[in-house]
Amino acid sequence: MTAVFASRLATATLALLAAGAQAAPEQAKPLPPRASVADVVKASKSADWRPLDPENTVYMDLPTGRVIMELAPAFAPATAANIRALVREKYFDGLFIIRSQDGFVVQWGDPDEENPKPFKAAKTVKEEFTVSIKAASKGGVFTRLKDGDVYAPQVGHVNGFPAARDPAKGETWLPHCYGMVGVARDNGFDSGNGSQLYVVTGHSPRHLDRNITVVGRIVQGMPLLSAQPRGTGAAGFYEKPEQRMPLQTVRLAADLPEAERSKFEVMRTDSATYQAVVEAQRNRGGPWTKVASGKIDLCNAPIPVREQR
Amino acid sequence: MTAVFASRLATATLALLAAGAQAAPEQAKPLPPRASVADVVKASKSADWRPLDPENTVYMDLPTGRVIMELAPAFAPATAANIRALVREKYFDGLFIIRSQDGFVVQWGDPDEENPKPFKAAKTVKEEFTVSIKAASKGGVFTRLKDGDVYAPQVGHVNGFPAARDPAKGETWLPHCYGMVGVARDNGFDSGNGSQLYVVTGHSPRHLDRNITVVGRIVQGMPLLSAQPRGTGAAGFYEKPEQRMPLQTVRLAADLPEAERSKFEVMRTDSATYQAVVEAQRNRGGPWTKVASGKIDLCNAPIPVREQR
Repeated sequence: MTAVFASRLATATLALLAAGAQAAPEQAKPLPPRASVADVVKASKSADWRPLDPENTVYMDLPTGRVIMELAPAFAPATAANIRALVREKYFDGLFIIRSQDGFVVQWGDPDEENPKPFKAAKTVKEEFTVSIKAASKGGVFTRLKDGDVYAPQVGHVNGFPAARDPAKGETWLPHCYGMVGVARDNGFDSGNGSQLYVVTGHSPRHLDRNITVVGRIVQGMPLLSAQPRGTGAAGFYEKPEQRMPLQTVRLAADLPEAERSKFEVMRTDSATYQAVVEAQRNRGGPWTKVASGKIDLCNAPIPVREQR
Repeated sequence: MTAVFASRLATATLALLAAGAQAAPEQAKPLPPRASVADVVKASKSADWRPLDPENTVYMDLPTGRVIMELAPAFAPATAANIRALVREKYFDGLFIIRSQDGFVVQWGDPDEENPKPFKAAKTVKEEFTVSIKAASKGGVFTRLKDGDVYAPQVGHVNGFPAARDPAKGETWLPHCYGMVGVARDNGFDSGNGSQLYVVTGHSPRHLDRNITVVGRIVQGMPLLSAQPRGTGAAGFYEKPEQRMPLQTVRLAADLPEAERSKFEVMRTDSATYQAVVEAQRNRGGPWTKVASGKIDLCNAPIPVREQR
């Protein structure tokens, strides 16, 4: 009896091999073992990690736990500033997750169109759908992935965020990868102010790139958002108030005493160790793998996050 | 006050424009309106659709509703046959969803490694990680997408399924797109028999392509799988039996009386209408869009399914 748990699908390795689950006859030459992503992370050094930036780290406390978002001000300085302002006036406290559209996004903000909750922060913020490569370079070094991309001339990472760019136009932008946070807007390009945000929860909708300001990434707690029941209204909006998950408090890490902060760190994407993570994902080895893909798509490159050591 | 609902993120169009949500000054020349995916679907004709094949349609009835999977025997004939055999001996009845790993897969089957539920169907099935292009062509015409792919030389669709291929090797395979169903296995390439299946619930893990037999697609009920709470064990396995969602009954459509069958149809991917769907997704127009991507990634090409008319 073969236990078929697809344990090797996961980055974590499970020891669930049952008797009889040997290599099949056609597997004449098993691939040589290679370091997995988990192996590379395990062997990393302290210098391969940076702490989350408290001025750009937002804690969203739901009844089910804490979600942590890191903002990327190098790619959206005005929008990140407005989100900080909204958080500091406690605008989000008591608002809700209002939408979950399967294979697409989960969105939070004010469900009340008729009598919206007022706020002092800016109502309009200039579009930051793309920024200049020169400006974004202040955020960190761009390390390029070599396997190409359907949507952008170049893709890679900057300071723990995925990034796309078009050198001919001198533009760069944050792509709509799983877990990335975008700024909902109306038709006006400046109508997204950060008071309604969404996170990608399905296959990365990259066709939205350069049409919306993408401002950051959920670095902890994705399951608390992604597993929300799907809304049955148009575009996945919840139809009944009781279906909405409340945002209890939303705070900037910098505004909390040290002792109340969550301590996480993200792998430095300009480190040699991160290049090894990418390579481990591009080329898997060992007896389970038949074909190492030898390629990696931007949104399939994991960006490790762990508790600070 | 601008209501920021990102309604135009969705394929469904919502009329949530608030006063003041006009085009911003920088939007000097709004893009001309274009047919959306929803518009194309609405204008389609009966001949643009085919019914689901009852011999290859599996109903998985959960306490929360019905999930419908369509098998693709042109790409995995032996595996599809074994899944039909397992369903017909009612093997899956009373088993469970046993795993939900965030951004990756949801898996179902027998949680009991020690005393597994016996079955009469084959315990091993030859690998169908790829099949010959010639063999798969019996399943339908391959219609190619023109924007390339990171992982495969060619990508497109066959008979309502996404498909990848390598003409130099004469091989084709079903890719790991969101909603596609794969056959969990152990190290042996023939150790996947269909008794444990998984569905992709995150960004498409295409590096698994050609390493696992992909056998079909969830065509209805994805939210019942994708929104399952994430498991807290290694690789997202549930740690407590009560966390597992039971599979009440799993049946082949062909084995149910006509009156008990769910009536859905899928758009014919070899139709001109489907090419219009793809084009609508590649190039969006109208006042919301700033930049039409002009590109489409295989797993971002929607394959419409609707109730049969």
